Amino acid sequence: MTDAVVRSTTPASSTRTPAGGAPEAPHTAAQAAEARIDLRAVNDLLLGTWADTRRDAREMIKDSAFWRIDGQTVAEHRERVLSQLHLLVDNGAAARAYPAEYGGIDNNGANIAGFEELVLADPSLQIKAGVQWGLFGAAIQQLGTKKHHDRWLADVASLALPGAFAMTETGHGSDVAAIGTTATYDADTEEFVIHTPFRGAWKDYLGNAALHGRAATVFAQLITGGVNYGVHCFFVPIRDEEGQFLSGIGGEDDGVKGGLNGIDNGRLHFDQVRVPRENLLNRYGDVAADGSYSSEISSPGRRFFTMLGALVQGRISLDGAATTASALGLKIAVTYANQRRQFDSGAGTPEVMLLDYGKHQRRLMPRLATVYAQAFAHDEFLQKFDGVFSGRTDTSEEREDLETLAAALKPLSTWNALDTLQECREACGGAGFLAENRLVGLRSDLDVYVTFEGDNNVLLQLVGKRLLADFARQFKGKDTAALARYAVGQTAGKVFHGAGLRRLGQSVADLGSTARSVELGLREDQQHELLADRVQQMVADVAGRLRPAGKLAPAEAAALFNENQADLIEAARAHGELLQWEAFTDAIHRINDDGTLQVLTWLRDLFGLSVIEKHLAWYLLHGRLSTQRAGAVSRYIGRLSSRLRPHAQDLVDAWGFEPEHVRAPIASGAEQARQDEARAYVEALVASGDAPVSEKSLSKK
Amino acid sequence: MTDAVVRSTTPASSTRTPAGGAPEAPHTAAQAAEARIDLRAVNDLLLGTWADTRRDAREMIKDSAFWRIDGQTVAEHRERVLSQLHLLVDNGAAARAYPAEYGGIDNNGANIAGFEELVLADPSLQIKAGVQWGLFGAAIQQLGTKKHHDRWLADVASLALPGAFAMTETGHGSDVAAIGTTATYDADTEEFVIHTPFRGAWKDYLGNAALHGRAATVFAQLITGGVNYGVHCFFVPIRDEEGQFLSGIGGEDDGVKGGLNGIDNGRLHFDQVRVPRENLLNRYGDVAADGSYSSEISSPGRRFFTMLGALVQGRISLDGAATTASALGLKIAVTYANQRRQFDSGAGTPEVMLLDYGKHQRRLMPRLATVYAQAFAHDEFLQKFDGVFSGRTDTSEEREDLETLAAALKPLSTWNALDTLQECREACGGAGFLAENRLVGLRSDLDVYVTFEGDNNVLLQLVGKRLLADFARQFKGKDTAALARYAVGQTAGKVFHGAGLRRLGQSVADLGSTARSVELGLREDQQHELLADRVQQMVADVAGRLRPAGKLAPAEAAALFNENQADLIEAARAHGELLQWEAFTDAIHRINDDGTLQVLTWLRDLFGLSVIEKHLAWYLLHGRLSTQRAGAVSRYIGRLSSRLRPHAQDLVDAWGFEPEHVRAPIASGAEQARQDEARAYVEALVASGDAPVSEKSLSKK
Repeated sequence: MTDAVVRSTTPASSTRTPAGGAPEAPHTAAQAAEARIDLRAVNDLLLGTWADTRRDAREMIKDSAFWRIDGQTVAEHRERVLSQLHLLVDNGAAARAYPAEYGGIDNNGANIAGFEELVLADPSLQIKAGVQWGLFGAAIQQLGTKKHHDRWLADVASLALPGAFAMTETGHGSDVAAIGTTATYDADTEEFVIHTPFRGAWKDYLGNAALHGRAATVFAQLITGGVNYGVHCFFVPIRDEEGQFLSGIGGEDDGVKGGLNGIDNGRLHFDQVRVPRENLLNRYGDVAADGSYSSEISSPGRRFFTMLGALVQGRISLDGAATTASALGLKIAVTYANQRRQFDSGAGTPEVMLLDYGKHQRRLMPRLATVYAQAFAHDEFLQKFDGVFSGRTDTSEEREDLETLAAALKPLSTWNALDTLQECREACGGAGFLAENRLVGLRSDLDVYVTFEGDNNVLLQLVGKRLLADFARQFKGKDTAALARYAVGQTAGKVFHGAGLRRLGQSVADLGSTARSVELGLREDQQHELLADRVQQMVADVAGRLRPAGKLAPAEAAALFNENQADLIEAARAHGELLQWEAFTDAIHRINDDGTLQVLTWLRDLFGLSVIEKHLAWYLLHGRLSTQRAGAVSRYIGRLSSRLRPHAQDLVDAWGFEPEHVRAPIASGAEQARQDEARAYVEALVASGDAPVSEKSLSKK
Repeated sequence: MTDAVVRSTTPASSTRTPAGGAPEAPHTAAQAAEARIDLRAVNDLLLGTWADTRRDAREMIKDSAFWRIDGQTVAEHRERVLSQLHLLVDNGAAARAYPAEYGGIDNNGANIAGFEELVLADPSLQIKAGVQWGLFGAAIQQLGTKKHHDRWLADVASLALPGAFAMTETGHGSDVAAIGTTATYDADTEEFVIHTPFRGAWKDYLGNAALHGRAATVFAQLITGGVNYGVHCFFVPIRDEEGQFLSGIGGEDDGVKGGLNGIDNGRLHFDQVRVPRENLLNRYGDVAADGSYSSEISSPGRRFFTMLGALVQGRISLDGAATTASALGLKIAVTYANQRRQFDSGAGTPEVMLLDYGKHQRRLMPRLATVYAQAFAHDEFLQKFDGVFSGRTDTSEEREDLETLAAALKPLSTWNALDTLQECREACGGAGFLAENRLVGLRSDLDVYVTFEGDNNVLLQLVGKRLLADFARQFKGKDTAALARYAVGQTAGKVFHGAGLRRLGQSVADLGSTARSVELGLREDQQHELLADRVQQMVADVAGRLRPAGKLAPAEAAALFNENQADLIEAARAHGELLQWEAFTDAIHRINDDGTLQVLTWLRDLFGLSVIEKHLAWYLLHGRLSTQRAGAVSRYIGRLSSRLRPHAQDLVDAWGFEPEHVRAPIASGAEQARQDEARAYVEALVASGDAPVSEKSLSKK
């Protein structure tokens, strides 16, 4: 299947130079007489560390049984996706993260990588698989102990035991610590009593809850001996073999959603439901038969975050899937824009190809650059995850860094997916609105990615708080002068990017490929400086404004924080953008081929400058860019967009999507065939001498 | 039903001051001890000139038969919407624009106003009604003559004759002049032969084409005597009484779409289909029996644009419907944010209400301000339309202005609807993703508004070209010095806003209500200056860069234009934003009540400053704002957002939506009931003495 990446999808007929009139802009690297990227090498880079697993997953989902069928009813779609989950089991593509004894291959990175590719088939399949093996199963695996693994994990892996992950409640989503469900220990019977005390404490939005789940991993306040030990997770059977709720359990269907309708989301509630003491998933906290509580983590706060952190993989997979879906959207829109023509330029040439319009380039090329940045950042992220979860680098510092990375990258890539898929849909006009061309369906399905597994704004606020904490730690006991020196940024790499990727060596400034931007003062090391300084300055600014908080009453301190909330979130976003830029740059430094290096350096520059342009007012206000250099940013973006235009098809083809992954008729070559047919018709009519003359030509006589 | 606007939807229980701990920010104007807006007066302002018709329409659609049912199949939804169109006829709510003799009331403004409100029931209903009466019927009314009206208009009005508007082709959307369908006159039989010469010329995306249409108004190149007279419109029967295609006609269903699935969009093609000569809708061009062509408009270009301009009402209604849908989204999200609580502030108070978060205010309040601006701009727009189409002000200059207004406002409001509905959906978290809460459905349906009836970017480019033409006309024969004086902006009001709304009198600077922003140098007249100068400068800049084009070869001139395309579109967007701001300001000047004036002035300031903030880099780069004033913009937006926070519920309630229009359970008070129940539970538990103690309190012992 790797042949896919070297097969251009642009038909030969589109590469001709128009006969007569002015030449069009080059549409391909060949026409531009430029070195082109090495498609296979770029495909390897994009697919990253677990490329083989990704290729296996893509090969598997070429089977149409995995594809979404537009227009199915919710009930039909749910049944189809359930059957697809069984197909995953049959194909050995489920639960790769589990130990071999329970049907897995004990490979955390490969598990996520393979799972992410399912988004190409149907995002509902990706997410329902994630609910079963990545949430319900992972809760048993990560929060439970061997007795739980032995009892349930093989059945989870084989789908003999479908389950729901019952964390979120109607009344509490992002604030998991405040959920209302209780699990009260009864020492007399050695049971926990799971109970829903009020309507707001119903578990809600749970995949597998409306229909298919037989059990649930239920998060509840653990109460024993009159003490609340905080949120813990319990294995609770919910339905019998016939699919009927067990005694004391009730629920509702969440009904139609804005997307992901192949998943049976629903609500659950518990009326004094008793489960054996052993059903507490007790890796991080346990209750003895007599009701005494014990935990190896004494701090209730740290215990809570450790338990939640064990489930970070959901956020990771959303970052990857959002990136892959965005790339697919761009593959469709760029391919169409390279075939579709509209409006005569007035220069006597054929109608203009969409991608030759300056505005169209401006719409698609920077987004293409962003998706590349995301892919490279995601692979480093996934490596870090695999290191921690394999045990190789499992330290509490690494775990904390991993969570911060997840909280920084997932918001950016999931929001960007919505933005990119929407721009692609609009760039394809009415054709983009047809379900068959996939853009609207992908966007609808990915909509909820921005608020589930952590609301994006809440996640960014977590990142912001981490940045503030790192900032404060750096200056503990130091004076204002140290703070000022800090702002100069010499130590920033370590402080801010401990959670992230590495700081650039200075040697890169010598690379010939960046020379063309030197004149603009916007080459690689300057991009890095601009992006990194912004994070530092924003954090320092917020920290400075929050400094009085320590001396204020709690309510006033809270009000002060609230005033700075939006800025803190912006600082976190800037941090995430810097991480993406650094990952893109690191990836470039691994390239040996000159043509690839040149083109991807342009693309990285386009990403960096687009981020800088987005925040241009900030750079001007803070004196980081002169008006002259700032004015150059937008002009340079325009030039980079048109410089990259001949490489656009290569850059989307390098993702290696095959027709069975793309499936959109407008990206199939059908548009090129229509253009060719129309042009041939007109040419034949002119040749026949029967063509009507125009009214204008008549009036000139 | 006007009672709706004086009934607050916020339950009384949410207005209490929390017991103990720090006070929360005021949630209502009453709590803030501030003058509140006069809800009824603001409702009158928002509903505008045709408020009575809007209220009638809203009363009608309180009948659940008009409501969208989530989860219906495409086939069921299509049948339901067709039946709703019959209900509109039964209610006398169809085709108000038609003369009384054909079943209308000859009222163009009321027709559009009433029609726009249907978006509250189901956008598919709004658009299918628009296809039938506003496109298919309007083509007959506006492009045909009395014989056509007599023959078909009554049947169109009564829905006895459902029809499609066959303009767009698979190969040509925005570029209507280049469509491929031909209508060749055969003098021997006195017939036109309608023909589709190649696949790209199939008519596509046509509502009523897949199933229900019995006829179509088909746009085709009119050819007679070997001359192509350009695009004209023809009445062509397409199906028999049994719904079967007539001979020579074929088609396809467009299938599932990203939204609006209550409409049967489809494709049509014609194989030498003959229609009588009289079926040419001949208001602007006719063919005599002998084949000779005549038109009262000699310029082919002007004739084409006159015909298209006769159909401007589609764009107008999209502007209005997008505004109403955005307001509904904000009604839902603000109401929820005023009841929902999440996270403890750490100040010992109850959990924080969402709308008390600084970030949440920043997300919702500027968008609320924008929707107000849109509503006021839309009413002035609708008045201009009514003037032209009633004949009262029907001059070619007014028609041109009307088209420019439509091309400026429709893109802004339709894009803003997608942005606002998405932000509202995210602000409601997982609940926002449920179809029952309406936000996802509205967004999906409105998605296509940004590319149909004129692609938004193409429309803005038209506005840009008009601005350039006005600019050039101003300086015809004048020297560079005149151009420089122009840039100072003294004459700009007339030049740029001839198409729009009026320039402010200077007297407004004296209004006490704007005094609070004087200190910041950002009061009303300065906002206006900043917004207006930007339009002028951007147009002047693009004009300056395009000036060499006259001396270039066509291809080079086209390339030069292409380089400036993105900037020209930005200039057009700035023009539209200025028009909205001026309309908002004009509306404020009609207010007599002090409280209303104060609050709406804050809201207008928030709109103006949000626009300026969006383009802050431009203002800094062009020396229009010092870094000091620029820095004040964002801070002032934050202050205005929190200053308006107690008025948020009033400002969304003032739209007058009743429960039958809102329908979203999360905005019904259910969330407040859940909050109250949970709080009562906790309070009772504490009072009982049985509440578990926290682990933390334990460790302190």
